[in-house]
Amino acid sequence: MKAFAEMSKEELGSLKVELEKKYAEYKAMNLNLNMMRGNPAPDQLAMSNDLFEGLEEKTGFKTKAGVDCRNYGLPTGLPEIKELFAQILDTEADNIFVGNASSLNMMFDTLMRACAFGEIDSDKPWFQIEGRKWLCPTPGYDRHFKVTEKLGFELIPVPMTSTGPDMDLVEELVKDPKVLGMWNIPVYSNPDGIVYSVETCERLAKMKTGAKDFRLFWDNAYVVHHLYEDEATHGSVPDMLGLCAKFGNANRVYEFASTSKISFAGSGLACMACNKDNMDAAVKTIGIQAICSNKVNQLAHSVMFPDLNAIKERMKKHADILRPKFEMTIKVLHDELDGTDICHWHEPKGGFFVSVFVLPGTAKNTVAMCKDLGVALTPAGATYPYGNDPKDSNIRFAPSFPALEDINKAVQVFTLCAKLSAVNKLLEA
Amino acid sequence: MKAFAEMSKEELGSLKVELEKKYAEYKAMNLNLNMMRGNPAPDQLAMSNDLFEGLEEKTGFKTKAGVDCRNYGLPTGLPEIKELFAQILDTEADNIFVGNASSLNMMFDTLMRACAFGEIDSDKPWFQIEGRKWLCPTPGYDRHFKVTEKLGFELIPVPMTSTGPDMDLVEELVKDPKVLGMWNIPVYSNPDGIVYSVETCERLAKMKTGAKDFRLFWDNAYVVHHLYEDEATHGSVPDMLGLCAKFGNANRVYEFASTSKISFAGSGLACMACNKDNMDAAVKTIGIQAICSNKVNQLAHSVMFPDLNAIKERMKKHADILRPKFEMTIKVLHDELDGTDICHWHEPKGGFFVSVFVLPGTAKNTVAMCKDLGVALTPAGATYPYGNDPKDSNIRFAPSFPALEDINKAVQVFTLCAKLSAVNKLLEA
Repeated sequence: MKAFAEMSKEELGSLKVELEKKYAEYKAMNLNLNMMRGNPAPDQLAMSNDLFEGLEEKTGFKTKAGVDCRNYGLPTGLPEIKELFAQILDTEADNIFVGNASSLNMMFDTLMRACAFGEIDSDKPWFQIEGRKWLCPTPGYDRHFKVTEKLGFELIPVPMTSTGPDMDLVEELVKDPKVLGMWNIPVYSNPDGIVYSVETCERLAKMKTGAKDFRLFWDNAYVVHHLYEDEATHGSVPDMLGLCAKFGNANRVYEFASTSKISFAGSGLACMACNKDNMDAAVKTIGIQAICSNKVNQLAHSVMFPDLNAIKERMKKHADILRPKFEMTIKVLHDELDGTDICHWHEPKGGFFVSVFVLPGTAKNTVAMCKDLGVALTPAGATYPYGNDPKDSNIRFAPSFPALEDINKAVQVFTLCAKLSAVNKLLEA
Repeated sequence: MKAFAEMSKEELGSLKVELEKKYAEYKAMNLNLNMMRGNPAPDQLAMSNDLFEGLEEKTGFKTKAGVDCRNYGLPTGLPEIKELFAQILDTEADNIFVGNASSLNMMFDTLMRACAFGEIDSDKPWFQIEGRKWLCPTPGYDRHFKVTEKLGFELIPVPMTSTGPDMDLVEELVKDPKVLGMWNIPVYSNPDGIVYSVETCERLAKMKTGAKDFRLFWDNAYVVHHLYEDEATHGSVPDMLGLCAKFGNANRVYEFASTSKISFAGSGLACMACNKDNMDAAVKTIGIQAICSNKVNQLAHSVMFPDLNAIKERMKKHADILRPKFEMTIKVLHDELDGTDICHWHEPKGGFFVSVFVLPGTAKNTVAMCKDLGVALTPAGATYPYGNDPKDSNIRFAPSFPALEDINKAVQVFTLCAKLSAVNKLLEA
């Protein structure tokens, strides 16, 4: 197809008629498709259906060291699970705290502790710092942004590049002592699926920050979530705890991970990883907040996933389900949009999302049209702080949950709406 | 035995010799007994061993309404579990929020929300109120006290009576606008096992408070934990949400409960109950903190406990295990201490604890002696704010975990140490 920008008004007008005809056809189909949230599909979840089967016979409800998981105890988690997450995150078991199912909850609580009590190297609790700021690589994860917004941070957007956040800008921004931290999804970022380069990680680990208590929140949600075995293999992003320590900033990073997209979403396990000094302080407060996390769930996971190899095997099976869905998404985008020059996107090799940039000024309209045709997408703007995409361009897809044929239809609908919105916009101009 | 206070120095001296001989005998036994924490016993926990057995066949992992519990969703909990907790707490399902396993965690988070953001009827976040205070019925639960201490409240002790906290004093203290709330364990208080009278509840519900955003934290941890079917039957303490509303203070109370002493300790379910306005505000923030709680665990519990009757049946079986342990504890106390006039105690009809007041000035010494003889008790003072029992008198027993014969020995050791400490104290005088 010809680039839209090079079309005459007449060409655009007749394209509009053609697209509106298609629109009416889809409208008549009464579709009901949902690409909003990164929910695992039922066949992915079913792989864990026997998570608890025979747990009593297999374990007597006891850890390898003989601790009864049905009772209170082991506040930092089962040694088996600490070791597992240590392998996943390429660190030591002592650096791991195992919580309940939600890593988001652990991020919120970690930031809340900093706000209420301060970090170990803070002069005062962050709640007492007026005008505190937080760096938000964009497009990014709306739930991250909402946590820092709720806790009173000014959210500073930093554009993502193909190697991670724009590091020249980050290094400049962190000179401000009010900038206290930064969100990161280093592997298969939400929503673009970008993997941070080693150089990006190193610059983050060693950069000089105005705040001596600056923190990286390192949400390694998709660290083992590869679609292709030959791409971005485990370990391609460095162990950030080690890297920060190497550059003399050992306190700088909190890592997070979960099994929400490995076992059960919302009913799996989550962990935090940090160095000893941060851990000691965190555990002191967490020990007041609760007695322990759900250890029966940890025990069941330790049987299902005795080591990193078991995780890798499971993730290959997930990839077999997800890969065709991602490839279908990308194929339809190419088939329908190549040459129009109105959209661009990054083609992820893992994670849970695809993010498309439509013609600036048309994202909201595109999402609204999709909704009208029965295709639910994440609200336009959601991938930006305060839900405000200044270019009104970015739209996130979550192709994990729907069936393949539904994804085909949903992305067809999306491309139609993106094109029609673009044509309308260009005709207005 | 003769009252110690009436003994002559000579009598005390020869009693001391006798007790020290016994002490040496116990010392030689190399005991290793633990009465510190309210841990359910293995045979109690075993009643829930099949919690997850056949869950897939029974439910297909779906709620009655068809929601897949393996995926994200239902942020306030399964309707089945909300209904169950509503029956337990004698309120409506809409008033229930189901969390993960720890009610302590929910109390901490609820208070943290008040501190960080304020209650719906607050002028400002509680962190901004210098000299904020919290009422602590004493003896009480050390983990409660530590939560409010950590969040910067001055802890104000209020003595417990046989009908609950000293209400004359409470009504006086709450006139202070800096007093923002109060801990309560209304049914089988930790550690005395006292049940609040209806009058106490009514006075708490209707009292005039200086702070318009005053909150009762109503930890109904033992609401169904009866040792005797004919005592303190369900409903003996009024529905506090209804009572507060009746007296025009609908926002006043947050209730909490859990299945930690019904199913698995630390791996069960916990809930918060409050009125609609408090709930709406809480859910808004909790929805930023996490996506949902562990629903697979909720689903398993809904199968095991379809209604309050199932809970009551289970609690009868627990009582069959716990009752002899409590009765053994009380019997040894009577056998060994009656007439000495150095100790007194309340005889609980439920809950998880027995609390003994030894001769003032001897609790620490008694606990240290017990430790020397291999019997671990909760540290003396732990039942008071800041771990400071001004009379050095209260000691908490948790007779749930050890076997009956061990409890016999442990309480024998305790009474010996209490007597020897008292004799030493009286000889010093």
